[in-house]
Amino acid sequence: MVENGVQQHLLHDDDPPNVPPKIPPGRARRFRRCQTAPSHNVEQGSALRSRQGASAASPLVPPKGLLTGGMRPRFWLVGVLLLAYLLAGTAAFYLVMDHMSGDRSGNRALDALYFCVVTMTTVGYGDLVPSSDAAKLLACAFAFAGVALVGAFLSKAADYLVEKQEALVFRTFHLHHADDYKSMRDMEANKVLYKLYTSAALLAVILASGMAFLVKVEGMRPVDAFYCVCATVTTLGYGDRSFTSAAGRAFAAAWITVSTLVVALFFLYAAELAAERRQKALAQWVLTRRTTSMDLEAADLNGDHRVSAAEFALYKLKELGKISQEGISEFLEEFDMLDADHSGTLSCHDLAVAQPG
Amino acid sequence: MVENGVQQHLLHDDDPPNVPPKIPPGRARRFRRCQTAPSHNVEQGSALRSRQGASAASPLVPPKGLLTGGMRPRFWLVGVLLLAYLLAGTAAFYLVMDHMSGDRSGNRALDALYFCVVTMTTVGYGDLVPSSDAAKLLACAFAFAGVALVGAFLSKAADYLVEKQEALVFRTFHLHHADDYKSMRDMEANKVLYKLYTSAALLAVILASGMAFLVKVEGMRPVDAFYCVCATVTTLGYGDRSFTSAAGRAFAAAWITVSTLVVALFFLYAAELAAERRQKALAQWVLTRRTTSMDLEAADLNGDHRVSAAEFALYKLKELGKISQEGISEFLEEFDMLDADHSGTLSCHDLAVAQPG
Repeated sequence: MVENGVQQHLLHDDDPPNVPPKIPPGRARRFRRCQTAPSHNVEQGSALRSRQGASAASPLVPPKGLLTGGMRPRFWLVGVLLLAYLLAGTAAFYLVMDHMSGDRSGNRALDALYFCVVTMTTVGYGDLVPSSDAAKLLACAFAFAGVALVGAFLSKAADYLVEKQEALVFRTFHLHHADDYKSMRDMEANKVLYKLYTSAALLAVILASGMAFLVKVEGMRPVDAFYCVCATVTTLGYGDRSFTSAAGRAFAAAWITVSTLVVALFFLYAAELAAERRQKALAQWVLTRRTTSMDLEAADLNGDHRVSAAEFALYKLKELGKISQEGISEFLEEFDMLDADHSGTLSCHDLAVAQPG
Repeated sequence: MVENGVQQHLLHDDDPPNVPPKIPPGRARRFRRCQTAPSHNVEQGSALRSRQGASAASPLVPPKGLLTGGMRPRFWLVGVLLLAYLLAGTAAFYLVMDHMSGDRSGNRALDALYFCVVTMTTVGYGDLVPSSDAAKLLACAFAFAGVALVGAFLSKAADYLVEKQEALVFRTFHLHHADDYKSMRDMEANKVLYKLYTSAALLAVILASGMAFLVKVEGMRPVDAFYCVCATVTTLGYGDRSFTSAAGRAFAAAWITVSTLVVALFFLYAAELAAERRQKALAQWVLTRRTTSMDLEAADLNGDHRVSAAEFALYKLKELGKISQEGISEFLEEFDMLDADHSGTLSCHDLAVAQPG
């Protein structure tokens, strides 16, 4: 019934605990802090393996396609799409450059790339505009594609942040040393704030470098350079001050892409910080409020008129909005299916009967 | 020890169940589907009350400031800030209108409002631009404030969507009839898709109305109107085609604000749909994969070598990334504190001893 002999003793109903009895009776920790470290001989290897990123070995790590692993390929896909957009856009606008009016730098390819970036980031200076109907419709198509692309990039960036946190949750299970655990907890608490500060500092550097370039290369007055930089990173792009030289447009193509994304990331982090603070306030309330007999009654999942630690934790999670009754029902259905002897608890024997082969 | 006599019988360890014994022994539903309906005499009133929105009566509903209630005031705060921004911006640009160059409509106040909206939404046509240093710096200040404001609005909108879903989770607990429950579940499944379609339809109407206005009032050719509408809703604002008449600028002030927000909402819903689908794929994996004896061992929270239904559900939640070990530890600490007789389960007696007064 159990393939692995090492695991055989672990959950037999009548077996004495195999784990050293480190828990004294009476007022003491009665719960096992590390749920993935059931028995020392099994654990050593699997914890190490999962730390090194091997997923097949641990039942706690979902398949690649679902959590962190599935993220990065799609994140890269957006990067590839971005590159494809820039290539296609530059080629298209290069071909219709004769149907464009406004300031030219003299370099046809550079102007096409510049117009493509200015369109993608929705800066839209208007210093170079399509003049024929065909060119206008082409610009419209690239405008919408650009917005969708930048939206997808930011959405992926937001997802990535969330999934990185989810991955951290999984990693937390594998941490055994109390020191590691505590430092990670402290790190977590200030991580979002730290990211916000980092992006703010990065933004300051980007603004300063843009201003310096406009003053040095485009020969703008400092106030005009500041005005142009502000109008650009906010994607306003009034267009009365913009990059007109060939060198300016080459710089602008890279600078505009980076600066607008950093501004967006800054606001993303600010929103994340606000969401996290609110979530913490709710958690604080759920954790500290008075427990009543009605709570006990509601928490009693199996109707045995006792509330176990797990039932209590599950009830609190429902209060936090982390799980709905629907979700719990699905778990209970699976539990029912696995509980072959209808004892109300699962054992290895139940599993062997319910999942033959 | 218990104030309310009706509740007294509910969780006494040795009392027989007060609920009618509707669960036959053997292969049957062993779990209570509705965790907030512990006893019929208590439940009737409280369920009704919480349906009507009274929160104090039910221990499941958090205080106003934390969930849905706390959202709307801050959502309105953003609305008030938006109005304040438009008022202050219109007043400021009205005063510096002599330091602005470009197309005038003849109505000074309308031009100021129009420039303010074009700046706030980062459309930035550039058909009306600041020409003095003071006006340029003023525009910079309003540009950043506008981006922050629109960002805050969208962040609140995103929060609102999430919190509405959280609130739904809470409401789900109070649903007793299976029909209600099922229809709500179906509704939920298609809700995000429905919202995406709605915003897409709204967007189409907005694009059409903008085009119609530009053709009729501004006398543009249909292609130019389409080009101008596209350049506006994507916040590109090249500015070679824009609203120049007084009527056009009055229309633009409202139309630009609404259209850019609807475009942003559309992308927000698209991102929400993608996130929900990924979350469902993870849930599907967690719910359907084979349970092993190592899972049982990891799920056994209180170390009694049996996995109860609640322990099983809690373990699945950890796999879903809904709860970290840290979170569970905090619940267990509170449980330890409340479990006065150290029996490993909570009863009314424990509560009375642990929370005197």
